[in-house]
Amino acid sequence: MTKMADLKPQHFIWDWQDRVATIRLNRPDRKNPLTFDSYGELRDMFRSLPYATDVDVVVFASNGGNFCSGGDVHDIIGPLVGMDMKGLLAFTRMTGDLVKAMIGCGKPVIAAVDGICVGAGAIIAMASDLRLATPGAKCAFLFTRVGLAGCDMGACAMLPRIIGQGRAAELLYTGRMMRAEEGAAWGFWNALHPADRLEAEALSLAASLAAGPTFAHGITKTQLNQEWNMGLDQAIEAEAQAQAICMQTRDFERAYRAFVGKETPVFRGD
Amino acid sequence: MTKMADLKPQHFIWDWQDRVATIRLNRPDRKNPLTFDSYGELRDMFRSLPYATDVDVVVFASNGGNFCSGGDVHDIIGPLVGMDMKGLLAFTRMTGDLVKAMIGCGKPVIAAVDGICVGAGAIIAMASDLRLATPGAKCAFLFTRVGLAGCDMGACAMLPRIIGQGRAAELLYTGRMMRAEEGAAWGFWNALHPADRLEAEALSLAASLAAGPTFAHGITKTQLNQEWNMGLDQAIEAEAQAQAICMQTRDFERAYRAFVGKETPVFRGD
Amino acid sequence: MTKMADLKPQHFIWDWQDRVATIRLNRPDRKNPLTFDSYGELRDMFRSLPYATDVDVVVFASNGGNFCSGGDVHDIIGPLVGMDMKGLLAFTRMTGDLVKAMIGCGKPVIAAVDGICVGAGAIIAMASDLRLATPGAKCAFLFTRVGLAGCDMGACAMLPRIIGQGRAAELLYTGRMMRAEEGAAWGFWNALHPADRLEAEALSLAASLAAGPTFAHGITKTQLNQEWNMGLDQAIEAEAQAQAICMQTRDFERAYRAFVGKETPVFRGD
Repeated sequence: MTKMADLKPQHFIWDWQDRVATIRLNRPDRKNPLTFDSYGELRDMFRSLPYATDVDVVVFASNGGNFCSGGDVHDIIGPLVGMDMKGLLAFTRMTGDLVKAMIGCGKPVIAAVDGICVGAGAIIAMASDLRLATPGAKCAFLFTRVGLAGCDMGACAMLPRIIGQGRAAELLYTGRMMRAEEGAAWGFWNALHPADRLEAEALSLAASLAAGPTFAHGITKTQLNQEWNMGLDQAIEAEAQAQAICMQTRDFERAYRAFVGKETPVFRGD
Repeated sequence: MTKMADLKPQHFIWDWQDRVATIRLNRPDRKNPLTFDSYGELRDMFRSLPYATDVDVVVFASNGGNFCSGGDVHDIIGPLVGMDMKGLLAFTRMTGDLVKAMIGCGKPVIAAVDGICVGAGAIIAMASDLRLATPGAKCAFLFTRVGLAGCDMGACAMLPRIIGQGRAAELLYTGRMMRAEEGAAWGFWNALHPADRLEAEALSLAASLAAGPTFAHGITKTQLNQEWNMGLDQAIEAEAQAQAICMQTRDFERAYRAFVGKETPVFRGD
Repeated sequence: MTKMADLKPQHFIWDWQDRVATIRLNRPDRKNPLTFDSYGELRDMFRSLPYATDVDVVVFASNGGNFCSGGDVHDIIGPLVGMDMKGLLAFTRMTGDLVKAMIGCGKPVIAAVDGICVGAGAIIAMASDLRLATPGAKCAFLFTRVGLAGCDMGACAMLPRIIGQGRAAELLYTGRMMRAEEGAAWGFWNALHPADRLEAEALSLAASLAAGPTFAHGITKTQLNQEWNMGLDQAIEAEAQAQAICMQTRDFERAYRAFVGKETPVFRGD
């Protein structure tokens, strides 16, 4: 168990208020590319989150009008060209580990996306639980544009489950930009908000989740991922067990007492 | 093999006509909550359906302008608070068994949803094969509102396959109401009909399915669930076997004879 | 390794230009039904494609204003009626093998659908990677109309992943026609184009894919199918390996060099 409120990361920005952590990349002049260092530090931060006692929800926000421009061409793509297989696999596994850390962090992650959101940036949005964007959000899985396959950090598994197999195939084969309205119509974005409202809306959603039964939210996140490739009967049994666990929390009792007393329940995450 | 036309359930209403059974909950004054008794009786009825020789399609209808308000707060949630793990797991397994019984019943189930459709009521709609609703249908997976997780009776497995992973996550984390138009646009509702037309439309759809090749419909239902987490090659082989079985039915021959004779085929379900 | 530019199929039409093969069925007077012969020949052609060194993309086009009317009633359905189980299973496995061959062919397949696209024709469209259609495209999974189940050639596995479980269930149980606008709104069609533009648009899309990193495209196709029923962690590891392979291609280096030199990369598929 650990406190993370005062985290001082070197390669991204960390803000904390009322049990909600807000992170954002810190190179707005270049539309926030990822580097080997920021990949690693983000991965380690998400890996610590399950043990954090003072963070219930994470907002992955934009900075300077853009979310993330993906792996830096000079800092990442340059060195990868010419690297041997051992080095390449170490890199692709590290990027995959960021996604594994996000889906395993035990707390809802809300992406708040303005402007450029491409390559590994699109993956970070995809790997979040909820996604808000602006009408100007430009999201592209542009791996094909740099000579690579669409299968990056789980995209061939996750994107089809979010927007359907046919639309995912188009985005992954062509690398084309998904317009914000398309993303909203297809269920990639949960909602669009004007740029000057985006972060307030994300923080408001985060606050409402943080005021909910956060232990149960963690179980919801676990099950959404855990049941990914279970059979239906297995999934139903898994949920019977998981929900029975939640029925022993005090939050469940608090909700019942509040209902009987005609009050609004106050959840505490235990 | 058994006849179910004259079933006399105690805790829900049963109507039967022309091989279509219509069921509805029977406490319209309280928007049709579920109780331990109605859960168990519904489960047993759906478990009997595979052996029923006189029912081909089930319509799960609304009553008094509402579908189902979920687990009764006084009859179910009160007793659960304070129950030990053995008792809680017995309950969550019983609710899961209702879904397992619905997806294993061998006949198409059509939900006809007006008004309130929340909690376990939303699950019953989700576990049906086809879903019709009115513009006033209010559907919410509101488990989080009572301090629980979104993983109830298979929701984390089934809802993402119906409306996509991102939209499902939003509904399950927030417990918010899905408006009828949203549900139609997202593929949760197959169609919206005015309240005074809803049941007639559901019965008409049921009649058309009952007039179809009902043995084959049962195989369609089996395969839609059976292939849930198969690999593609396995699924294709499974369908080769399943369809070959259907090609030995008389209904297949009836369709061919009717086509050659320029007539409309009359299917009999064998 | 083999060349396929000069293929002379007997039961379908083959055109080849600039590494793009265009195929179409050749009985436009009857809306292009499939026969035992065309099934087999298509299957064999798709099975050869992984070894073809001169084909990068396949367009499955329409002919005479229609795509495909499915299995020929006289040539196929007639003989099936009365066939024994061994013969029936041999047939359903052969049709399934066409789909297996399409998803295993290693190159993107683009369906260009005008007019009738029903039964096995709808399956061929579904098993393609990308799907373009005209506003007049009429697509129906009408197996139920001939007394069969919706589980044909993988439909119960693939259709729900493309348009969602609820919409797929409706189409498979009822056999009803999916209107072109529905198919576009649901993500079955990637785009609609006027009939007189359809094939040009499909060829233009094919050309752009053929000008891309075609080795990587093959990996994208492999992973989209390979990860179908993997767990999330497995899928992410699988993609780390697959993408590391792509990072050793010259196309990846070409993209980097072009970026640094402020040029447009020229990919060669190695």
